[in-house]
Amino acid sequence: MIFGATGDLAKRKLFPSLFHLFRKGRISKKFAVVGVARRDWTHETFQSHVRDSVLTSIGQSEDIEEFISHFYYQPHDVSNSESYIKLKELADQLDTKYELQGNRIFYLAMAPEFFGTITDHLKSEGLKDTNGFHRLVIEKPFGHNLPSAEKLNTQIREAFIEDDIYRIDHYLGKDMVQNIEVIRFANALFEPLWNNRYISNIQVTSSETLGVEERGRYYEKSGALRDMVQNHMLQMVALLAMEPPIRLTTDEVRSEKVKVFRALRPIEGEEIEDYFVRGQYDKGSITEGDLTGYRDEVNVDPESNTETYVAGKLMIDNFRWAGVPFYIRTGKRMSSKATKIVVQFKDIPMNLYYNPEEPLAPNLLVIHIQPEEGITLHLNAKHSGDKLKTKTVKLSYSNTGIHGMNTPEAYEKLLHDCMLGDATNFTHWDEVKLSWSFVDKISEYWERTEEKSFPNYASGSMGPKAADDLLEKDNFFWWPIHNLEVDKC
Amino acid sequence: MIFGATGDLAKRKLFPSLFHLFRKGRISKKFAVVGVARRDWTHETFQSHVRDSVLTSIGQSEDIEEFISHFYYQPHDVSNSESYIKLKELADQLDTKYELQGNRIFYLAMAPEFFGTITDHLKSEGLKDTNGFHRLVIEKPFGHNLPSAEKLNTQIREAFIEDDIYRIDHYLGKDMVQNIEVIRFANALFEPLWNNRYISNIQVTSSETLGVEERGRYYEKSGALRDMVQNHMLQMVALLAMEPPIRLTTDEVRSEKVKVFRALRPIEGEEIEDYFVRGQYDKGSITEGDLTGYRDEVNVDPESNTETYVAGKLMIDNFRWAGVPFYIRTGKRMSSKATKIVVQFKDIPMNLYYNPEEPLAPNLLVIHIQPEEGITLHLNAKHSGDKLKTKTVKLSYSNTGIHGMNTPEAYEKLLHDCMLGDATNFTHWDEVKLSWSFVDKISEYWERTEEKSFPNYASGSMGPKAADDLLEKDNFFWWPIHNLEVDKC
Repeated sequence: MIFGATGDLAKRKLFPSLFHLFRKGRISKKFAVVGVARRDWTHETFQSHVRDSVLTSIGQSEDIEEFISHFYYQPHDVSNSESYIKLKELADQLDTKYELQGNRIFYLAMAPEFFGTITDHLKSEGLKDTNGFHRLVIEKPFGHNLPSAEKLNTQIREAFIEDDIYRIDHYLGKDMVQNIEVIRFANALFEPLWNNRYISNIQVTSSETLGVEERGRYYEKSGALRDMVQNHMLQMVALLAMEPPIRLTTDEVRSEKVKVFRALRPIEGEEIEDYFVRGQYDKGSITEGDLTGYRDEVNVDPESNTETYVAGKLMIDNFRWAGVPFYIRTGKRMSSKATKIVVQFKDIPMNLYYNPEEPLAPNLLVIHIQPEEGITLHLNAKHSGDKLKTKTVKLSYSNTGIHGMNTPEAYEKLLHDCMLGDATNFTHWDEVKLSWSFVDKISEYWERTEEKSFPNYASGSMGPKAADDLLEKDNFFWWPIHNLEVDKC
Repeated sequence: MIFGATGDLAKRKLFPSLFHLFRKGRISKKFAVVGVARRDWTHETFQSHVRDSVLTSIGQSEDIEEFISHFYYQPHDVSNSESYIKLKELADQLDTKYELQGNRIFYLAMAPEFFGTITDHLKSEGLKDTNGFHRLVIEKPFGHNLPSAEKLNTQIREAFIEDDIYRIDHYLGKDMVQNIEVIRFANALFEPLWNNRYISNIQVTSSETLGVEERGRYYEKSGALRDMVQNHMLQMVALLAMEPPIRLTTDEVRSEKVKVFRALRPIEGEEIEDYFVRGQYDKGSITEGDLTGYRDEVNVDPESNTETYVAGKLMIDNFRWAGVPFYIRTGKRMSSKATKIVVQFKDIPMNLYYNPEEPLAPNLLVIHIQPEEGITLHLNAKHSGDKLKTKTVKLSYSNTGIHGMNTPEAYEKLLHDCMLGDATNFTHWDEVKLSWSFVDKISEYWERTEEKSFPNYASGSMGPKAADDLLEKDNFFWWPIHNLEVDKC
């Protein structure tokens, strides 16, 4: 059952992902999807909507009619018990028709304010009273701070146990994010070097070129810290920093990630200035035209104190990472759209090739998350013809280059994982709790203190100068994203 | 002065290399080249010969007439003092004309039986009696065993001191061979792993597709061991295995290489069977047609015991390499022409991704020496779509891909080094001595014992089965050369 089935997420991601799984035979023919939403649609309207969504996404396909025949629609009022009773009736019918053995997934693809109401009703109206499994999939945001997340969690847990709650962080479904663990734990080359003796710092950048678009009302209450850092950025840091798990089971992986969050150096009050930088985009111009500043966007306060950019330095105070800063940055209206991780290795103990004019470049491992997918290693090699000179060479592997666009979408993988009951790539409550408690200190301080320099970066730039200063203090710099690209040949 | 100036090496390599140096401005306009050989040529004949050689090699060029105007010819009888006196007269004239300050390089591009006679005369007839430097460049083979090499060396050293003797091993002039040191010593990623804790074995392959061609007479006395192993193969092993030198000076680098040879586990008598395998090519057929077996080649004994293939296992008994086999193989008439080094890393301590059907592939660093030039790293990454499966991905850097054929030829670099007085990439007598004394034990044993299985590999194959067994005993295998190629995209 997809709650919010007429919405944007369902249309753009869920239906095409389900179709891919269907066509690959990863969903058996015994399945039904019930679309649930306010609109007064019929099954046929909904099926036609799903057909459009799939065909828009993948073009013509023979299997589409068979696929959409599994789709049903139930008009719904989330706070009305009657609605749930009707839904239960339909679900029970389909259960029999498709021999579903009472297995149900409830996907809440809608605003979080209704999560509690829905889960309460699902339980009270008996939609969970079947013999099979009952899994709840919920989208971010999971609260807007720790108290609200705790409240939401308590409410959901009235109806669902933790093991049945699948909190989506779609970054965890991305192929190259899932590759972080594989790169680390399946290669003898990296694990011996993956610590503070050999790594000098790690940089995680997730930049967008778009502004806040029509989401001003939501964004004013959220900001980049809550929208990106609390979930996606901290999740990537956890995967980069975690100890090798005993095995790759959900519990073991999550328990190692939780340990990273527990080792995160807590910061509060004025010392936040030493670790975090906020930015807000000003107007700017790019080749395609002029761009509006954040404060001039629709539904945005003309004196808004909301950050559209965050850069931060995270310290993980454990044996492996003591002294190694993890720098993160994310923002809107930046010069390029890219998510990349740069692992910078320490300099070699003695440089035989030292040239005062061109110091030896450090080795870098670059993991390209999106839109490029791949791995690049920056090494030093001999400068052809010049004996004691070196040059940086890039050893590249591009996922996109070889497989085209065949890498499954994040949602496809996550939906499949949920069907299989594998919650490894979903966020456990312990992770949500710890990441909110880290982030809350920062957002509270920022709400208390107005950032007088706002707006402090031009649209189309790589963020405020203070973000560069943050690294410069430590004698580092942000590796320019445009120099990190996978070499095309 | 090039002795043997009408020969093949001068024509194919030396003149084009000199021209490249000339055109790049690496040779000043104050230079002269004297061609010395038996034929009764004039300066003009010689200049026209040089012009042809250069134009054949590089196509049309504006600078060619100016370049060849620096070339002179002196007909010569190597054992006749008169010849040297005439040569000295010409050299002295050119010295004045081009203001050469008495600097002279004597390049012996000819059969080694004349080396001693020539160097004796160069000294006795006063060709070294000028104020400048006097450097002797000699081509391989430097003897055919240790006693003959010692004899040759003693004779040459009557006229030239060790520092002025430039023994060419043209592999040391190859860009990717020179890169071995840079890869190791300029990258923080590799040096911590470059030892017996992380490397399981190293494989050096230098395969040729051609047979012995018209060189049967020479080859019958040499064989692959003397022709390839004593020099090129052992030199590559030394560069791979040496400790980081204190600095990159000639003396420091050579002294580290010599230490590798001193740590080579000596083998003799029957135990050679455990470490070395010899092969001789049989006839065979490839798509282009049928190929002759070695024993049917021109000037080859129909019952020849000469090896055209060698595979060996070298153990370097020092702290860094104890327990790590260095496997080498080289041969004629093999399935592909390639020189490649494969560094195989040990397996990770525990494999989280273990799949009994597809065990995790070890990480490999492949250094492509020729004809491809580049570096490839074989890593494991996530199998798209399949959660606990991994696949091998290749991170590649191709030198040829980016620079076209602009990497300078080995001879160009070596000639330039010699002009600058840099002997780092030439072989010191101590290296020659130690490598002969290692190789002599094997060739003596092989001469004593007839290999009854000869011919034991088909033309167009990768050598005899015994070479595979050599690695199989240690639970390794030769990484197939055709799978190692730099990915083309």
